[in-house]
Amino acid sequence: MTTTDTSAAELDDSMRNGVDTAALFATLDAVKQAPQAASFQFRAHNQWLSGTHNRGTIADFFGVGEERTHERSFVFDADHPAVLVGQDQGPTPVEFVLHALAACLTAGLANIAAARKVRLTEVRSTVTGDIDLNGILGLDPEVRNGYQQLTVRFTIKGDAPAEKLRELVEQSQARSAVYDIITNQVPVTIEVDTP
Amino acid sequence: MTTTDTSAAELDDSMRNGVDTAALFATLDAVKQAPQAASFQFRAHNQWLSGTHNRGTIADFFGVGEERTHERSFVFDADHPAVLVGQDQGPTPVEFVLHALAACLTAGLANIAAARKVRLTEVRSTVTGDIDLNGILGLDPEVRNGYQQLTVRFTIKGDAPAEKLRELVEQSQARSAVYDIITNQVPVTIEVDTP
Repeated sequence: MTTTDTSAAELDDSMRNGVDTAALFATLDAVKQAPQAASFQFRAHNQWLSGTHNRGTIADFFGVGEERTHERSFVFDADHPAVLVGQDQGPTPVEFVLHALAACLTAGLANIAAARKVRLTEVRSTVTGDIDLNGILGLDPEVRNGYQQLTVRFTIKGDAPAEKLRELVEQSQARSAVYDIITNQVPVTIEVDTP
Repeated sequence: MTTTDTSAAELDDSMRNGVDTAALFATLDAVKQAPQAASFQFRAHNQWLSGTHNRGTIADFFGVGEERTHERSFVFDADHPAVLVGQDQGPTPVEFVLHALAACLTAGLANIAAARKVRLTEVRSTVTGDIDLNGILGLDPEVRNGYQQLTVRFTIKGDAPAEKLRELVEQSQARSAVYDIITNQVPVTIEVDTP
C-alpha cells in the first residue's frame, strides 16, 4: 500500500471500516458501568395479506432503558414462490433466516476488524440452507421442519494475513447473536387472541 | 354472514384465504409420489458496505430438481441503530429473525386454515425477542449471545370458533420451519476464502 492509498478514515484512528471505534469502546465502557443498559427487546409486527403473502414491519424496540424507534420503519413482504403454491411477492421466511445470519456475522466481523486495527476492503458471503420439505408438508415424520444444515462461505480481503482474517470470522462467530439463535435453542411462547 | 358477503373466492371452493387449495393438495400428492422433489436449497448473498451496514440479496434457489430464481431479486439492508454504534440503514440482523418467525407461522396458518375450510378475515402478530447484549459485547460469559426468549402474540379473526382458530396456530407451530430452526439446533459450517 502506498501513502496515496491512505484514506481520510485511516488518518483518523477512531474511524476504521466505517466503524467509529471510539464510540464502540465508549459503549462497551458504559455497559460495563451499567450492565442493565444492555437489556434490549426487539420486535417485528406482521400482517397477513393473502395466502402465504404477509408483510412485516420493524420499527420499535426497547434498549438502554427506554422505548426507541428506528430512523424509519422497515417493511418486508414474505411469500412462497409459485413452486410452493405462493405468488412470490417476497422471499420465503426461511430465506430471511439466511440473510439474518450473513448480516450478523458480517456486522460483527467489521466491528472486530476495526477493534483489531485490520482494514477490510471486501467482505462477501453466501449462506446456503438445505431443507427437505417432506418435514413441513407432514409427509415424513422422520424429517425435521427446519434446515438440515447451513453453510456460510465468506470471501474476505483486507490488509492482514489470511490467518488473521480467518480469526476475525472465528471471533465474529463466537459473538454472533444469530449464529447462537440458529445453532442453539431459544424458547418461544405463542399466545393467541381471538377477539 | 349474509349471502351478500359471499365472495367470489368462496364460490370457487378451490380458492380460500388466497390459497389455491387444489394446487396445495396437488403439490402434496406430487411430493408423495416423488419425495426427492422436496429437497430444496435456499440461499442468501451478502455484501459488506461499511461498519455494521451490509446488504443481502435473495434471488436463486434449488428445488423440485432444478435451479430456480424468484420472480425478482429481493434486496435487504441490515445495520445497527445509532445506540448500537451503527447508522440505522436497516434493521438489525436479530430483527430479521423475528420477522422470519412471524412470516412462517402466518403463511402456515393461512394454508392450514384453507385446508380446513376456515375463512380468515384478519391475522396480525407481534414477535418480541428479549436479548441481553452483555453476551455479544463479551462482558458477561454467563450471558448467551442470542435471544433469551421470544414471544409471539397473534390476533386472529375468521369464521370459526375461537378454539378452532387456536388449533390452526398449534398446527402451524407444529409444521413451521422457522419455529423449528429457532427452538431446536441447526448445524452451521463456516468457510473462509481469503483470495
